[in-house]
Amino acid sequence: MGEAGAFVNGAIAQSVSPDSPTLRLGPGSPLRMDSGAVLAPLTIAYQTYGALNAAKSNALLVCHALTGDQHVGNLHPVTGRPGWWETMVGPGRPFDTDRFFVICPNVLGGCMGSTGPASINPETGEPYGLDFPIVTIADMVRAQALLIDHLGIDMLFCVAGGSMGGMQVLQWAATYPDRLFAALPIATATRHSSQNIAFHEVGRQAVMADPDWRGGRYLVEGTRPAKGLAVARMAAHITYLSETALHRRFGRNLQDRSARTFSFDADFQVESYLRHQGTIFVERFDPNSYLYMTRAMDYFDLAADYGGSLANAFKDSRTRFCVVSFTSDWLFPTRDSRAIVRALNAGGASVSFVEIETDRGHDAFLLDVPDFVDTTRGFIDAAARARGIA
Amino acid sequence: MGEAGAFVNGAIAQSVSPDSPTLRLGPGSPLRMDSGAVLAPLTIAYQTYGALNAAKSNALLVCHALTGDQHVGNLHPVTGRPGWWETMVGPGRPFDTDRFFVICPNVLGGCMGSTGPASINPETGEPYGLDFPIVTIADMVRAQALLIDHLGIDMLFCVAGGSMGGMQVLQWAATYPDRLFAALPIATATRHSSQNIAFHEVGRQAVMADPDWRGGRYLVEGTRPAKGLAVARMAAHITYLSETALHRRFGRNLQDRSARTFSFDADFQVESYLRHQGTIFVERFDPNSYLYMTRAMDYFDLAADYGGSLANAFKDSRTRFCVVSFTSDWLFPTRDSRAIVRALNAGGASVSFVEIETDRGHDAFLLDVPDFVDTTRGFIDAAARARGIA
Repeated sequence: MGEAGAFVNGAIAQSVSPDSPTLRLGPGSPLRMDSGAVLAPLTIAYQTYGALNAAKSNALLVCHALTGDQHVGNLHPVTGRPGWWETMVGPGRPFDTDRFFVICPNVLGGCMGSTGPASINPETGEPYGLDFPIVTIADMVRAQALLIDHLGIDMLFCVAGGSMGGMQVLQWAATYPDRLFAALPIATATRHSSQNIAFHEVGRQAVMADPDWRGGRYLVEGTRPAKGLAVARMAAHITYLSETALHRRFGRNLQDRSARTFSFDADFQVESYLRHQGTIFVERFDPNSYLYMTRAMDYFDLAADYGGSLANAFKDSRTRFCVVSFTSDWLFPTRDSRAIVRALNAGGASVSFVEIETDRGHDAFLLDVPDFVDTTRGFIDAAARARGIA
Repeated sequence: MGEAGAFVNGAIAQSVSPDSPTLRLGPGSPLRMDSGAVLAPLTIAYQTYGALNAAKSNALLVCHALTGDQHVGNLHPVTGRPGWWETMVGPGRPFDTDRFFVICPNVLGGCMGSTGPASINPETGEPYGLDFPIVTIADMVRAQALLIDHLGIDMLFCVAGGSMGGMQVLQWAATYPDRLFAALPIATATRHSSQNIAFHEVGRQAVMADPDWRGGRYLVEGTRPAKGLAVARMAAHITYLSETALHRRFGRNLQDRSARTFSFDADFQVESYLRHQGTIFVERFDPNSYLYMTRAMDYFDLAADYGGSLANAFKDSRTRFCVVSFTSDWLFPTRDSRAIVRALNAGGASVSFVEIETDRGHDAFLLDVPDFVDTTRGFIDAAARARGIA
């Protein structure tokens, strides 16, 4: 078996037995989910960095995005690549691990050790597959709250995240307004748009069209819908970048050749790049988990849970918010962030809003964009002073 | 066999024996293609509407887009739906069939009767599949010129088309500047962008990932990569619409249900709509032809054929141009049309430019957008007067 196979096996191993601490809750502590399902047992895999102070006032929860995981600030156990938010997490970084106790859980429904569709269903002794209940953003946050309880923390200093991570931040602020001092929702929205649902549906159909998906039973049947998942990732990847960034990076440049081949080879660099993105993704991510994560985002509509009023979701919140968007993000454009800001203002919350000028698209929140890093640092430092954190 | 199967069989029949006139060129009249391939025999299927006047001055050539065909103004022989540009073609319409002799050929590489990958390869007696040579926009236009010769027309009154059709219009103007009096390139570009190549590559990978594609030999092997082609169409379809149009039409509305089902059913109207678009497309279109059409667009870079200078492509052109773009078209945004206009001006050509205000996205050129229809009518009427057409 080649390197790719080794990666896949590594990823499957991590979903069962992760290289990180876990909170395990038995049949006596079931999680009630939005769908009505009751989930038990339940495992939450997570990483921590830094130390909790005596006052337990310096805990900073990081919520990951669609295909992220708990390895926000350390080498990834499957890919060996740096943590996915190393621009933000570490000594001297905005989420300074010399000052803050940074916690990052793998979300419910994920595939890096938290309970998800690749986990064993106790009723059958086989992986859940599509028998796993649909997960919502609120379900993810409920599970995270159990972890925060377990760590003995009443109030988080801050909850931060981008994209699907930002949805979790907003859900935290709405569900547990007294448990977070500050909130940093980045490149996100209070509800998923029609266009975004459409792109997600394309990805799901690509996975499900792969005959090796086997109705979600590929782990039992020993297959893997790698081609379908790669196509899904390729389509999604385009939406994470801006047209400008793609043009600057690739233009119409040819890949390792001086002329068009008049074939269906990857003549253009952008084709080669996309194929590579598809290939490396399928080596680390569970296809069913991809279905569940996209569905959770599609279902997210915070106002709907508060009588149709977003202001109600944030009513009388005492949390300090910093809302961040990026000019070239067309997946979660600035108007989505403005809607969050309007609702927070209407609810009487304390909110600052920064639109970062960049041409790097939605993925800007994962990249070393100086204005963004500085903005985050400023917000966190000021909030830490207000919270009395040394 | 159900209705879908009947459609598919109808489509395959049309590719071999179309319900429209054809120009058939034998082994003695080969087409030399950009790839170096020499294609013979060659069939061009086409439709005409109206009558050629005695001066042969009133011929209007319509070039179709990626998944279009020659049935621009009549019921489609496979789907039974109206012609794809009925807003434009017909008595009293801008391309008035009482005044003009409208010609619309199926492009080379297409699947409605013109020679393409579903045609029989005379060397093997089987459908070409991937042995069909890669087709460029210039190859399509060369084949169309043979048709125009055959019809006895020296100079076309006008060549018009949107999207890939617009690319053909620009190629006509560059290759045969003395053979068109007027040109109407709509929602198009002189070269395909990095982002557009990326979306096309996703579509191709979706088709090729389908095991029923069989390396392009599905016609020989009796399979059909319907799922892969449907995914490709779904992804592409999103790019034809604007985010605003999707939001207005679908928002987050649920499909025939009052609440989320907490499943992977098509809960949202936009999901149901996309799945439908995928399904109806595969019933009428050849999967290999889809690969060839997308590749032709990706390869299009008019300036590259003229020493890197777009102005050279249009140097001393006496053709009258009207360039049209749509404000909400993010696939071929207005800046692409402005680049055409700049090059035409630099080449000394006569050009008017209209950006139509609409939120209907790239597909606006196919829809009944009054400002667009009126603009086209105005340009055509003025050009007809200048050409002395009654």
